[in-house]
Amino acid sequence: MRGVVLTGPGDVRVEERADPRIIEPTDAIIRVTAACVCGSDLWPYRGVDKSAGPAPMGHEYVGVVEETGADVRNVKAGDFVVGSFFASDNTCEICRAGYQSRCVHAVPIGAIGTQAEYARIPLADGTLVATPGPPDADLVPSLLTASDVLGTGWFAAVAAAAGPGRTVAVVGDGAVGLLGVLAAREMGAERIVMFSRHADRQKLAIDFGATDVIADRGDAGVAALKDLLGGLGAHGVIEAVGTHESMMQAIRSTRPGGHVGYVGVSHDVELPGNELFFAAVHLHGGPAPVRRFLPELIDLIWSRRIDPGRVFDLVLPLEEAAEAYRAMDERRAVKSLLRP
Amino acid sequence: MRGVVLTGPGDVRVEERADPRIIEPTDAIIRVTAACVCGSDLWPYRGVDKSAGPAPMGHEYVGVVEETGADVRNVKAGDFVVGSFFASDNTCEICRAGYQSRCVHAVPIGAIGTQAEYARIPLADGTLVATPGPPDADLVPSLLTASDVLGTGWFAAVAAAAGPGRTVAVVGDGAVGLLGVLAAREMGAERIVMFSRHADRQKLAIDFGATDVIADRGDAGVAALKDLLGGLGAHGVIEAVGTHESMMQAIRSTRPGGHVGYVGVSHDVELPGNELFFAAVHLHGGPAPVRRFLPELIDLIWSRRIDPGRVFDLVLPLEEAAEAYRAMDERRAVKSLLRP
Repeated sequence: MRGVVLTGPGDVRVEERADPRIIEPTDAIIRVTAACVCGSDLWPYRGVDKSAGPAPMGHEYVGVVEETGADVRNVKAGDFVVGSFFASDNTCEICRAGYQSRCVHAVPIGAIGTQAEYARIPLADGTLVATPGPPDADLVPSLLTASDVLGTGWFAAVAAAAGPGRTVAVVGDGAVGLLGVLAAREMGAERIVMFSRHADRQKLAIDFGATDVIADRGDAGVAALKDLLGGLGAHGVIEAVGTHESMMQAIRSTRPGGHVGYVGVSHDVELPGNELFFAAVHLHGGPAPVRRFLPELIDLIWSRRIDPGRVFDLVLPLEEAAEAYRAMDERRAVKSLLRP
Repeated sequence: MRGVVLTGPGDVRVEERADPRIIEPTDAIIRVTAACVCGSDLWPYRGVDKSAGPAPMGHEYVGVVEETGADVRNVKAGDFVVGSFFASDNTCEICRAGYQSRCVHAVPIGAIGTQAEYARIPLADGTLVATPGPPDADLVPSLLTASDVLGTGWFAAVAAAAGPGRTVAVVGDGAVGLLGVLAAREMGAERIVMFSRHADRQKLAIDFGATDVIADRGDAGVAALKDLLGGLGAHGVIEAVGTHESMMQAIRSTRPGGHVGYVGVSHDVELPGNELFFAAVHLHGGPAPVRRFLPELIDLIWSRRIDPGRVFDLVLPLEEAAEAYRAMDERRAVKSLLRP
């Protein structure tokens, strides 16, 4: 089969890779209908994360089940499925508490690589959720977002305690931050403030429910936010970047007793204990337990209540994966969808 | 009046200080019935926190109202009162959300110094809570704990999401950690694990409700805890020390999705973002909003349901404050009470 391989910084190739096959009786093989490039894929692409050698890429996916292992019960050949970027058994104590991304048997899908024609999904029963039927073509991009960026933005909004009467600010105007706006709106947040200096992303944020936009960042952004909110920080802040600067901006943008939901994969972050102590905020985040939210998100998409697929502003055939990465790296695209 | 002054590291003196007087119409003057030495007082005592010059000491107190400013409504001369270690208006948006220690008008009582015969309490209406009447003498130590260490341990247990069916671990066997055990028990925690290597503190922890004791600390303590709990960390962990080591022990002792309640005043803490991200815990803490809990804590003490005053194992007249500090510094005492 054809699949994306990162051979070194900036060097994305589509190569022949071995067809996946059932290894464990809990596996399923899916034919990938759509995959995409994640902001987190840019870390190894840019050489910030070192990889040991050529690596298959991709951890977001929707597709059709081709084959299932002997123990798989919940999905069957022909089902259209959405899965999260960590495989999980969905039965262990951690999964049952809603933290499937930290399942005691978790398998990172990124090590498998879904930017490909086919993929082996471990722990299929606990990982995959079938849609009510074959989706209309225009729903596919939205369903694909549920696999990671929507589920991650949703988790961030939950962690930021978004809800009625609350003001939520969002640090990071990539797909996750934008869908954090959408999630906060769905949860009934009264005011949603997007930090962004890019006109196209500002516009999408407003379409998704942002009520205010602040172009400043860092401490200037914090000051602008507090001006806007009468001196206090937001009740909740979504952090969707993962740098030290963005984490500190998120913490400083939150009022005492407020909630920071951080989902940007952490790089170069060292939180100063003394400042954190007196900030008196709630801090919660990490790899989003997307599986917790999948049934609800699929419902919202299926009923066309939300349209998160709008974050895809570039659609390319799998063979043009290199351009999909380049466009995101150069910020010409918010998010690139790949069709195998 | 007589009052404690720290003139330099290790140098605690009881000196003549000016009698406090009403400055703002929202002030009250109290005659201090009992004060005490806090673990956090040991930081400047040991010279870890530098102070600019001779400093009045003490932020925990119970006493009798002597005089009130013209605007004070909620307490009157003769009332026996308990107050928190931050004065707060208890009316601002932050106070109403339960974060009185970060009130927009907060005043640290430590800058006033309650290890003295009298003290001026700012924002008396928002800060002081009167007991139902003059307390029996044996209740005074317990009421004094409500001013800080009990309220702080209580907040930590709330932040650690202590409750029925939950396992809570406690890092730090000082008065706050010990009262964190008591708080977790009152909240219905099923299993309470105390990290302690001191026989007297282990015993008190067990009396307060600890079900297990682990003498190891750091990563060895984390490993021992996970052995005890079948491989997973605790649902909630109370951190009551404030060092980098203790914070990391607390985070690593918590299962994914669990809650760390940290109340040890932060020193030398730098949280590594990447580890924190994949830990997927909730982190909440800071200076405890003791005022939020005071009415409930006074009720529990008044009805003799809880006996937190047992953390005081040394009682001295104010004039012997130097020995009160020394005994805690040398770990001969868990907590020293001072009687002016």
